[in-house]
Amino acid sequence: MGARQEHHEKLNDAFAQAFNKGDTASVAKMYTEDAYLLPPQSELVRGRNAIQQFWQAVSEQAGDLKLTTVDVEPLGSDAAREIGSFSLKPQGQQQEIVGKYLVIWQKVGGDWKLATDIWNTNK
Amino acid sequence: MGARQEHHEKLNDAFAQAFNKGDTASVAKMYTEDAYLLPPQSELVRGRNAIQQFWQAVSEQAGDLKLTTVDVEPLGSDAAREIGSFSLKPQGQQQEIVGKYLVIWQKVGGDWKLATDIWNTNK
Repeated sequence: MGARQEHHEKLNDAFAQAFNKGDTASVAKMYTEDAYLLPPQSELVRGRNAIQQFWQAVSEQAGDLKLTTVDVEPLGSDAAREIGSFSLKPQGQQQEIVGKYLVIWQKVGGDWKLATDIWNTNK
Repeated sequence: MGARQEHHEKLNDAFAQAFNKGDTASVAKMYTEDAYLLPPQSELVRGRNAIQQFWQAVSEQAGDLKLTTVDVEPLGSDAAREIGSFSLKPQGQQQEIVGKYLVIWQKVGGDWKLATDIWNTNK
């Protein structure tokens, strides 16, 4: 595991921690200003404000988000693609939702931000 | 619309045409050897052979695939990310499946190949 993967894993941990506290303002700040979010059972969502609204609605219905990096690959010097798996627990249900995601990280100033984020479920 | 986007649109047309003919060997050749496919309701699929098997099974149950590019962005000189929408008609059903996708294109030799491909449905 390279330093780059470790760095993205730390960012993912920060994402999950913020989401699980309902701190969707911090979640939204991890995206670029004009990021794309492509959630299942939804139209495309674009921009940090719309993304915060989306995650706010999800965080009111689910929690215990876990993100696990599977593979990170650099794309040029300022971008990287990450493949990973996730689990999430809907309120009042025993069964976790389990799925996989693809994100494009983009370097903005000195910081890595989520520029594109899509996922789906395994079942 | 730039030349790059037009080029990816032509590749998408070739993908849909091959798929709609059931020519999944040609579909598989559009992926890199070790490409990742992340289909909904499935575990992660990796490698050209496994990807061909996946598309073969889908092509026996559905057809009339249409791919529409929404946004292409270069990532360094040898990669690009494309966001798009798709529709697909399951056999014996009136209703199309409609969704969106994110793909990472990678230049291999002189050719653009699909290196990572994920999608989900809008409903």
